[in-house]
Amino acid sequence: MITPVLLTLLLMGADENPAPRLDQVELVDLSHTYDHSTIFWPTSPIGFEHKVLAFGPSGNGYFYSAYTLSMPEHGGTHLDAPIHFSKDAKTVGQLPLTDFYAPLAVIDISEKTATNRDYRLSPDDIAAYESKFGQLQPGTAVAVRTNWSRFWPDVKAYLGDDTPGDASNLSFPGFGTAAAKFLVDRGVSMIGIDTASIDYGKSKNFAVHVVIAGSNIPALENLTNLADLPEKGAWILAAPMKIGRGSGAPARVVAFVPKNLPAD
Amino acid sequence: MITPVLLTLLLMGADENPAPRLDQVELVDLSHTYDHSTIFWPTSPIGFEHKVLAFGPSGNGYFYSAYTLSMPEHGGTHLDAPIHFSKDAKTVGQLPLTDFYAPLAVIDISEKTATNRDYRLSPDDIAAYESKFGQLQPGTAVAVRTNWSRFWPDVKAYLGDDTPGDASNLSFPGFGTAAAKFLVDRGVSMIGIDTASIDYGKSKNFAVHVVIAGSNIPALENLTNLADLPEKGAWILAAPMKIGRGSGAPARVVAFVPKNLPAD
Repeated sequence: MITPVLLTLLLMGADENPAPRLDQVELVDLSHTYDHSTIFWPTSPIGFEHKVLAFGPSGNGYFYSAYTLSMPEHGGTHLDAPIHFSKDAKTVGQLPLTDFYAPLAVIDISEKTATNRDYRLSPDDIAAYESKFGQLQPGTAVAVRTNWSRFWPDVKAYLGDDTPGDASNLSFPGFGTAAAKFLVDRGVSMIGIDTASIDYGKSKNFAVHVVIAGSNIPALENLTNLADLPEKGAWILAAPMKIGRGSGAPARVVAFVPKNLPAD
Repeated sequence: MITPVLLTLLLMGADENPAPRLDQVELVDLSHTYDHSTIFWPTSPIGFEHKVLAFGPSGNGYFYSAYTLSMPEHGGTHLDAPIHFSKDAKTVGQLPLTDFYAPLAVIDISEKTATNRDYRLSPDDIAAYESKFGQLQPGTAVAVRTNWSRFWPDVKAYLGDDTPGDASNLSFPGFGTAAAKFLVDRGVSMIGIDTASIDYGKSKNFAVHVVIAGSNIPALENLTNLADLPEKGAWILAAPMKIGRGSGAPARVVAFVPKNLPAD
């Protein structure tokens, strides 16, 4: 029987790589767990605090457990809202869901970061991706894979330095400023990376944050499991806690991977 | 051109209502915003606290804003993990993503709750839904629509009482215990409601929580925008913050609604 969806697909027959159906995807969890080992920026006043309110018999015939949580917005797998680095830009609560949901391009620079922990994504890396997979379309989300998540939660290995309160000697890969501008020009909807910051560890002026925030583009930091994604063909939903005035928020980031991705 | 996805659809031609493609859905935000007005259980020690760490010129040439957040797990739009009411059941961090992602049945009992704020979903309500839309399949998520979200954030209207620290006089609709058992028997993956609790306000034994948690089923509370969803045909992704030992967590709950839902 020809259904409306099927008819649409027939009419779109020229598309060799259509988006999969909601029931034909595998989910990949791109978020680290929040616990005592969650990594925060060295200058954060607190880490992730999880305190017991109750854990045991309630006295009314049932078991009951509950906790409180406290944390800075910018630790663990989280979203930076544009207002984090741009005064008049959007808060978490002002970003529409459509900003968080997009086809996902995964740019793998892990060979370069394996030998240079201060490597930054370059326009050439993006050009290499585009030569293989086609030009990044407006509205695409871009995740950069450095494989840094393999160090989590070893602070020294992940950030390059574990001196409490001192962020002056960090070392890890990030986006380069020219690459960030390139992605803004392409009209990307969101960027993300599997390190602690979209700016590399040695940055002192956070130029990538300034460029991205200034364009009202949200960013994801401390992603994981990017190695489980295809370079093209997956979709992403970054679901930040809806903090109305948030400059950022913990996010449960989910990738939808086609169960049977057509061979390239 | 016949693609693998298209071929699958052709072979499944008998399905008149297939899941839509990822690029053929509208997103509906089922989460309330977290701010000073977020509603928590009356006995909660704190509400949602959002404190400024920085907001202004950084002194290094760029603007910078950041906050901390503190809250009990069980307020605002959140997920109850089974361990909330069942000692040996799963924490938030132990629940797989597949538990949060499912076709969504929306059972509308708003006509009954309009005249009875202590109404509880009954097995007859579920039977009426099934007579119209077919039997609930294993793995389906079920949301009950009471339209209570229209009262948010008016504590008195929403909870039925706004006496601080006193939860003994609450009044709002919920699931009935027999209905909860019925849904467990159907093999539902998750349940949710647009009130403060899956148990109705007058409950003293939280029997629905006990039944649902005892079956390792997660639950969503304080949902909103259920009126924007079809009774059948949408999908849901409840994305709780990944708190490893959490008895619950704030959740960004998203519904995927087919852009062109076939007429019934």
